[in-house]
Amino acid sequence: MPDQIGYLGPAGTYTEQAALLYAPDAELRPYPTISAVGAAVVADELESGVVPIENSLEGSVTFTLDLLIAESGLSICNEVVIPIDHYLVAPPGVSADTVEVIYSHPQALAQCRAYLGEHFPTVTREASLSTVAAVIDMQASRVPAAAICPQRATEIYDVQVIAQSIQDNSANQTRFVALAHDDHPPTGHDRTSISFAFAIDRPGNLYHAIGEFSERNINLVKIESRPTKQELGRYIFLIDCEGHREEPAVAAALHGLREYADVFKILGSYPCWEPSAG
Amino acid sequence: MPDQIGYLGPAGTYTEQAALLYAPDAELRPYPTISAVGAAVVADELESGVVPIENSLEGSVTFTLDLLIAESGLSICNEVVIPIDHYLVAPPGVSADTVEVIYSHPQALAQCRAYLGEHFPTVTREASLSTVAAVIDMQASRVPAAAICPQRATEIYDVQVIAQSIQDNSANQTRFVALAHDDHPPTGHDRTSISFAFAIDRPGNLYHAIGEFSERNINLVKIESRPTKQELGRYIFLIDCEGHREEPAVAAALHGLREYADVFKILGSYPCWEPSAG
Repeated sequence: MPDQIGYLGPAGTYTEQAALLYAPDAELRPYPTISAVGAAVVADELESGVVPIENSLEGSVTFTLDLLIAESGLSICNEVVIPIDHYLVAPPGVSADTVEVIYSHPQALAQCRAYLGEHFPTVTREASLSTVAAVIDMQASRVPAAAICPQRATEIYDVQVIAQSIQDNSANQTRFVALAHDDHPPTGHDRTSISFAFAIDRPGNLYHAIGEFSERNINLVKIESRPTKQELGRYIFLIDCEGHREEPAVAAALHGLREYADVFKILGSYPCWEPSAG
Repeated sequence: MPDQIGYLGPAGTYTEQAALLYAPDAELRPYPTISAVGAAVVADELESGVVPIENSLEGSVTFTLDLLIAESGLSICNEVVIPIDHYLVAPPGVSADTVEVIYSHPQALAQCRAYLGEHFPTVTREASLSTVAAVIDMQASRVPAAAICPQRATEIYDVQVIAQSIQDNSANQTRFVALAHDDHPPTGHDRTSISFAFAIDRPGNLYHAIGEFSERNINLVKIESRPTKQELGRYIFLIDCEGHREEPAVAAALHGLREYADVFKILGSYPCWEPSAG
C-alpha cells in the first residue's frame, strides 16, 4: 500500500506540486487547513503532511510556525523548495483579446502586476480565495474571463494556457516542509530547526543563545520571532542552523541552549533540499 | 490649523482608535492601505501617519516592516499600544436571540470562538474584509444579523451593543507606530528600531551584530527577519533595542553595527508607550 501523504489543499495548488515532488508514488490527500494537516499526522492518519513554511517574497507562513511551536507530536522530517511560476489560463475557445476580467489570489495578482499592466492594462482584476479557486471563479464568470494559477491546475482543469511564467520577480520561491512524528536520520547535508524562549527578559539572553552556535562555527540560516500570545513584547525565537542534531557540534550547541533557555524544542533535523539535476 | 495625521482606515477601526489616542486634537485622515499612509507622509501631505506594526497574538504586520525597510524617507516617531476589545453589535431593534448570522473579519471571529460557541453555537459566521466592513455587511443583511467590531465603530454607526470584551484572550493588544520624516528627540525612556543585512552568509554574522548591544548591556526588545526578496534564505534583520540613538551606549552599538553590516538603517528612536494613568 502506498504511503498516505497529506497536504494543504485543494488539488492544483503549489502545495500539491510540492507534495508530488516530495512523494511521487504516495497517495496524496488534500486537507482544508494547515492545522488539519498537522492534526491528521498526530492522529496517525498520515505518514506525513506537506505545508508551506516560507516564501522568498512574503516571508514566513506564521500558521505553520505556530503549529510547530504548539504541537509536541510534530517534527519537520523533510523540506521541498519550488519556484512559484504563475500561468495565465482561459476556458477553451476564449480568446485572450476578449477577456474582461482576470481572477486570482491577491498575492498572485500583485506578483504579476508588470505583466498585467503591459498586456491587460484595462482588464478588471478580481480577488479569489486561492489560485485554484480563481480557475473555478473564471469558469463561473458570465463575461469572458481568465485566471492566474499554478502549472498543476492546468493539468487538472479544462483550460487553455495563454502565457506562462508571468510573475514580475523570478526569485519567487516557496519552501515547504513535511511534518511527521519523527524527524530524519543524518544524511551529511542537513538542517536543524529549533524554538526557544526565556522566562525573564535580560540583556544578553539572545546573545548567549546565538553564541552557542557561533562559538562552534555553526552557521545560522534563519532567525525568526513569534509572539508568546501571553503578553505584547514577549517572544518565542525560531532558529534554523546548518547540520544535524546528532552531529557532535550541533548536539553540544543544542545542549548548551537547552540549559540556558526556559522553553526549548527541537522542531527537527532534515536533509537540505537539493533540486534534482534533471 | 490642527496637525494633519493619517491612518490606515476606514474610520471606526482599531487604527483610528490608536490615532485618536496619539493625536486627539489633530485632523485625522483615513487612507486605504499602509503604503498609501507612508506615501502621503513622504509627500508632505501629513505631519505623520499611524499604522499597525505588531499584534500580541498574530505577530508582526509585515507590510509595515517592509515599508520601513524600503522607504528611506520614513522614520518611526512614536508608538501607541491599545487593547483589542471586541464588541458584539446588532441593528437597533434586533434582539440577540433572533440573530441568524454574525459578520466580522476572520481574525476577530477566531478570537471570539469561545464566546460565540457558548452564546451563539448554531449561528452562521460570515467573513468580512474588516471589523468595520462587518458592520456594513450586517446592515445590508436580509436576515437578522450581528457584527463583531471595535468600540470606535459603535460611536460612528447606528448600532446597539449586545456584549463587550467578548474576545477569548484578554492579552490581545496591538502596537501602532506613527511614521514621519524625522524620529523623536530623547525623552529618557525611549526605544530604537533598526534594520540591517549582510551581503555574505558567514557563521557568526548575527552573533557579532547582537554582541554590539550585549557587550554594552543594552537590552534587545525584539528581533525579526524579513526576506530580501532577492533569494530564498537571505534576510534583512530588524531589531528593537532599549534607549535612544543619541545615548552614548546606543550610539556606539549602532556605530559598531554600521561598520560591520552591509546594509544598515536606523528606523527611528521614539518614546516607549506608557498608558496614561487615567
